[in-house]
Amino acid sequence: MKSGLSFLIAALRCEIDALEQLARTSALVGTIGRLVHALQRERGISNVLLASRGQRFASQRSEQIAECLRVEEAVRASFDRLEADAGRIGNGARLFSRIAWVLPGLEALPELRRRVGALELSPAEATAAFVKLIAGLLAVVFEAADGATDPEISRQLVAMFNFMQGKEFAGQERACGGAAFASGHNDSARQQQWLHLIESQERCFQVFAEFSGTDLAELWRASQSPAQLAEQERLRRIACAAPSGMALDTDLSQTWFDCCSRRIDAMQSVEERLAADLRRICEQKTSQARAELQAHDALLAKLAREAGTPAIFFDEQPAADAPGHPQTMGSATPYGRQLERSILEMVQEQSHRLQAMSDELDTVRAALNERKLVERAKGLLMAHRRLSEEEAHKMLRQTAMSQNRRLVDVAESVLSMAEYLPREPASRAPHT
Amino acid sequence: MKSGLSFLIAALRCEIDALEQLARTSALVGTIGRLVHALQRERGISNVLLASRGQRFASQRSEQIAECLRVEEAVRASFDRLEADAGRIGNGARLFSRIAWVLPGLEALPELRRRVGALELSPAEATAAFVKLIAGLLAVVFEAADGATDPEISRQLVAMFNFMQGKEFAGQERACGGAAFASGHNDSARQQQWLHLIESQERCFQVFAEFSGTDLAELWRASQSPAQLAEQERLRRIACAAPSGMALDTDLSQTWFDCCSRRIDAMQSVEERLAADLRRICEQKTSQARAELQAHDALLAKLAREAGTPAIFFDEQPAADAPGHPQTMGSATPYGRQLERSILEMVQEQSHRLQAMSDELDTVRAALNERKLVERAKGLLMAHRRLSEEEAHKMLRQTAMSQNRRLVDVAESVLSMAEYLPREPASRAPHT
Repeated sequence: MKSGLSFLIAALRCEIDALEQLARTSALVGTIGRLVHALQRERGISNVLLASRGQRFASQRSEQIAECLRVEEAVRASFDRLEADAGRIGNGARLFSRIAWVLPGLEALPELRRRVGALELSPAEATAAFVKLIAGLLAVVFEAADGATDPEISRQLVAMFNFMQGKEFAGQERACGGAAFASGHNDSARQQQWLHLIESQERCFQVFAEFSGTDLAELWRASQSPAQLAEQERLRRIACAAPSGMALDTDLSQTWFDCCSRRIDAMQSVEERLAADLRRICEQKTSQARAELQAHDALLAKLAREAGTPAIFFDEQPAADAPGHPQTMGSATPYGRQLERSILEMVQEQSHRLQAMSDELDTVRAALNERKLVERAKGLLMAHRRLSEEEAHKMLRQTAMSQNRRLVDVAESVLSMAEYLPREPASRAPHT
Repeated sequence: MKSGLSFLIAALRCEIDALEQLARTSALVGTIGRLVHALQRERGISNVLLASRGQRFASQRSEQIAECLRVEEAVRASFDRLEADAGRIGNGARLFSRIAWVLPGLEALPELRRRVGALELSPAEATAAFVKLIAGLLAVVFEAADGATDPEISRQLVAMFNFMQGKEFAGQERACGGAAFASGHNDSARQQQWLHLIESQERCFQVFAEFSGTDLAELWRASQSPAQLAEQERLRRIACAAPSGMALDTDLSQTWFDCCSRRIDAMQSVEERLAADLRRICEQKTSQARAELQAHDALLAKLAREAGTPAIFFDEQPAADAPGHPQTMGSATPYGRQLERSILEMVQEQSHRLQAMSDELDTVRAALNERKLVERAKGLLMAHRRLSEEEAHKMLRQTAMSQNRRLVDVAESVLSMAEYLPREPASRAPHT
């Protein structure tokens, strides 16, 4: 039969396990960030290649594909390492399910590249394909953030997910604006989508700044030069404030692309810093927990040498007369009692610390709720209206754009009327 | 490098692991229920022994102690089994920390029993000791419920925790009323405490009925005979509506005790049924997940034999043309494509199912929030006013009683003024 102290140690071991797991997941998130960045560049280059009917960026493209393949290998290796550790991951099922979704996307990349190289796709089609793959990769990051069990690490992961998502919206804005300037005109549908991308981006960076701490938020602000921001805002205004159908200067397409790319590259350096901070926090927390475990192990050994188990548990509040108070430190207390008392205090302290962590975690995780609401609303539409995921998302986005509301508010409206909708028969799966 | 299907299977394996773990935790909860019941009886018997200065219930007490020791052994064995599996438990740290707290209580039981046997304690002191130990055991059950990852099992565990907690309030009411009738008078402090125990009890059974499903709620209603309920309400009225200090008929103490005990024993049979249902649900879910895993394994083997990976991921919505739709089933679709399509659909279906489960889980877990709020408010008071846990709880309860508000409402008020309180230095632990 094990003693209370053994379970105090078992609790600590669980914490260490969870932290080591978080370190692995965090490393994966950093690697995914690099792959997303590489794919965003490939998307931009592919767009130019297709728009120029193969005249421009052919060699840049092969270099970029080589870079993508290198990072993809690192991501896949991280996936495999995670799978080997399957049993120890808290939200393993959801994380793995997201990975299961993204892998066929990676498998399909060579064929996508072949089609781009053969100029078989329009820029819009190629963009959509990359957007889908990157969304899948970001969903993995989201689950990693949602599954974190340490509030400080969770906070950092929430900041990182929102930064990556904001960066992806910025990448989509680059593509959207690039297409507008290259085609020489804009229309109101694209203008609406564009404004939506700007708004979503800003919302993400806001959440990032809220969770990343002052240093990183400052780094992020400093990384954007005012001149460059002004130039981007000028180009946005030209394209978005223009009456629908009015001609745009096609020469601005290169200016727009370079301006966006400088901003996105600056984002990448902030993201690398976020990833480095995350690694550092994980290491710190793990070694801190290990040191505590060692201290407890020593105490356990000491306890094993001592005898006697007085009924101190039922004496009045062990925490009331905390160590440092004269009556505990006084020689009147027998040694065995004092040892037992200090174990009870350690257990109580641990339990309060874990409780406080769990409370803080709930608060941090609430920041992920917006996205969950949107996912739930999508699921509802898919079930009730037999829509695909893409169709459901488009429907929500269009409602948001036409009603000038935030996506999350539309999602909430949809969910609040869930009861009024009839239910489809549950499963349509092929294997049942 | 692993394929998407391997991660789909890894996700399923995680689910199965989690379900098996839940089965173990659920078995522990059932065993704890039996120990709590045995300790509640021992508490009642010890009270009578002490109140009669050793004249009554001496032999019943030795029988009951033997019963307690038998069940305690089963509980400890369950604890040890859980510890052996430490790494695989989602909220392991918190669960183990609760166990670490309760074990010194079990260690201290022999000394408590010696003092009771030697009539060294007052009935109130003995009652307080048993209440503390039982609260520790219920905290383990609470963590088990809070850590469940399957919404249906979580629902059952929430019902069970609330039922056990309600039963414990009923046990405390038996002790409180027993003391009042035995002493031949009641006072307003005890009356307030008594009314509070009735209210807390009813609140617990209400949550139980909400989460247990109609069958069990019906069984619970049927287990309480109207005549017996009427008798208990009559006795409650006599003692609680009497002016403070008025004499009570001491002969009613036996009537009261028997009446409460019949009700509590009836509760035990409902609890056994809850535990049996929980076991059945765990088994069902696990074998269901295993069957699904087998089906997927077969598909994986089939896929390994086929070649080719068309870029179906980037084709428009795989879910839109679901199986059963003519275009997918038609011979126009090459076989490999169809297989790949069905894997993508399986992944999507799994991901939606996991998402729905996680949403439902959030809803069920919200029912545990009341208790968490009270715990948080206690923690706050302990930190800011240097109170012990017991003192903090007493303070909250007294505020609730004097303001005639629910405990959880007082806790919320305390938490809402958290920012106005100064913070104590963080750690007072002896080992730092």
